[in-house]
Amino acid sequence: MSGDFLSEWRRIVAERDLVALRAVLAEGVSIGAPPYWQRFAGRDVVHHLLGLILHTIEGFTYHREWRHANELALEFTGRVGEVELQGIDLITLDDRLAIAKLDVLIRPLRAIEALQEVVAPQMTKFLASRGRSG
Amino acid sequence: MSGDFLSEWRRIVAERDLVALRAVLAEGVSIGAPPYWQRFAGRDVVHHLLGLILHTIEGFTYHREWRHANELALEFTGRVGEVELQGIDLITLDDRLAIAKLDVLIRPLRAIEALQEVVAPQMTKFLASRGRSG
Repeated sequence: MSGDFLSEWRRIVAERDLVALRAVLAEGVSIGAPPYWQRFAGRDVVHHLLGLILHTIEGFTYHREWRHANELALEFTGRVGEVELQGIDLITLDDRLAIAKLDVLIRPLRAIEALQEVVAPQMTKFLASRGRSG
Repeated sequence: MSGDFLSEWRRIVAERDLVALRAVLAEGVSIGAPPYWQRFAGRDVVHHLLGLILHTIEGFTYHREWRHANELALEFTGRVGEVELQGIDLITLDDRLAIAKLDVLIRPLRAIEALQEVVAPQMTKFLASRGRSG
């Protein structure tokens, strides 16, 4: 069951398929991203932030994976520029196998700093533009 | 099987039992810690680094856990000073159920910075003293 989700998720990440990414996010999805303690919630915001992360991390490769009912833990490696990283996605699927909750944890420190340097300004800009339009 | 390890591991962390911690580390154990990309290897070094981390993170609480054969993923929360954090231990057990490999990933950035501030100077001191004695 969650196996179907997994193969689609791996494809989305490998191909940076942002259209399909949106389709696997529940409307009320929330994300805990590496730089921030505060969670971001809602499909639009999470989709944007995940898109930025997917475009910033190169060489995404999945390794160990764990499943327990609708809870998944997926280990990956990649790099931001020259900085190598190891990370994990902690994913809670809802009954429709859409992502209800996602946490992304990364080491080492330098990789999070490098990720934040690229993602934070774009995220701030995105949130400000939503604030204006809303 | 790994359930026995898990209850002992949770007790070790909750009680900061560094003597028992040493007993669950394989001789050739290696650790990938949040601040560093470079892994540290060997029971003495890993024991020291884990001891520092256990003493620096307060309010250690375990949440979701995943097992797949000898591979474990254990989610926790805690704080360093006032900084709240979410983390995960990725643990590979050997056939004797000792820890052969351990990765610790933490978010957010601020928590890793706070952890590094406490741990790095002590770790540098420890490694230097070993260099002198060896």
